Amino acid sequence: MDSFSPSFNRLVGLITRMPGIGARTAERLAWFVLKSPPQYARQLAAELEGLHEKIIFCSRCGLMTEQDPCVICTSARRDQGLICVVENPGDALRIESTKEFRGVYHVLMGAISPLNRIHPEDLRITELLDRIREGGVREIILATNPTVEGDTTAYYIAEQCKDLTVQVSRIARGLPIGSDLEYADSLTLTRALSGREKF
Amino acid sequence: MDSFSPSFNRLVGLITRMPGIGARTAERLAWFVLKSPPQYARQLAAELEGLHEKIIFCSRCGLMTEQDPCVICTSARRDQGLICVVENPGDALRIESTKEFRGVYHVLMGAISPLNRIHPEDLRITELLDRIREGGVREIILATNPTVEGDTTAYYIAEQCKDLTVQVSRIARGLPIGSDLEYADSLTLTRALSGREKF
Repeated sequence: MDSFSPSFNRLVGLITRMPGIGARTAERLAWFVLKSPPQYARQLAAELEGLHEKIIFCSRCGLMTEQDPCVICTSARRDQGLICVVENPGDALRIESTKEFRGVYHVLMGAISPLNRIHPEDLRITELLDRIREGGVREIILATNPTVEGDTTAYYIAEQCKDLTVQVSRIARGLPIGSDLEYADSLTLTRALSGREKF
Repeated sequence: MDSFSPSFNRLVGLITRMPGIGARTAERLAWFVLKSPPQYARQLAAELEGLHEKIIFCSRCGLMTEQDPCVICTSARRDQGLICVVENPGDALRIESTKEFRGVYHVLMGAISPLNRIHPEDLRITELLDRIREGGVREIILATNPTVEGDTTAYYIAEQCKDLTVQVSRIARGLPIGSDLEYADSLTLTRALSGREKF
């Protein structure tokens, strides 16, 4: 249901384009902005306005950064010989938050998905292979999502690395910690069984 | 986990302030904007920038509008003697979407909630009583939410209307259409039983 304000409807329309945001949520968010002090809307507008100018992607790893190369690619405290390959910058942030990974990243900017017309050449796979060929890379961990697209992408990259002197591994899949067998789907369970580790 | 771009983190921070949006969702939305063509971010920025200037609230009913009084308050096709009282403009839109209500609205801009320091004088209750006193109002339907706050507000307004010649009704509460008794909470069920209608 459209409101009687075209401006409000346009804003709701723009917000509705975001993933996972339906018409009602969009309306609720727009209403929140409208109810908040005008300063909030202006701050949001300013950040959005400058977003694409300020944020660049590291030419080496593809992470979001405001300097190129990024702080991780230039850090002497990170293991530059261990590359974690992820689909999106957000995945790298998620891994960073574990504070356990001391290597570097390579963001593919998506996953192979013929249905969505995303082919290997649309991803940053050539850049990854170039990094490996340059030398100094000991291992790559394929941390693409445990989905059909992520698995396909991991398989494709592993194939491409066959003739290169680099160890290729895939992030482990199985039951999430703290979950309950009762609620696990059969695919996860099958995978957790076949991938069992010695005790 | 913060990204390595302060601009991105600031945008995520602003989005996180919205109701029902956690840090992860905020990050996902910001990332969506960044991945979209810059044109999208600019459109959003432009709408947000002008939001508070363009949208006003109808001085009569409180609906969002770009002209005052709003199209509903000035419509000859609406029953100006029947006022539906709601907490927020969005509630009026929801009722409009049924296409069944032919009266007009009065938006309170919230509900009485002492815990959140929202008292009767913070709402548009005086404006409602003034509209009734002006004459021509036959009935008001209290369509505040079926919550403690909404019920309190409805009760308060009904009290204030005691000495006025206006019929006061409350929107019906009971089992939602298409729902299942099995999943109804006991308060709704109690209410649905006590509010039973003759068959």
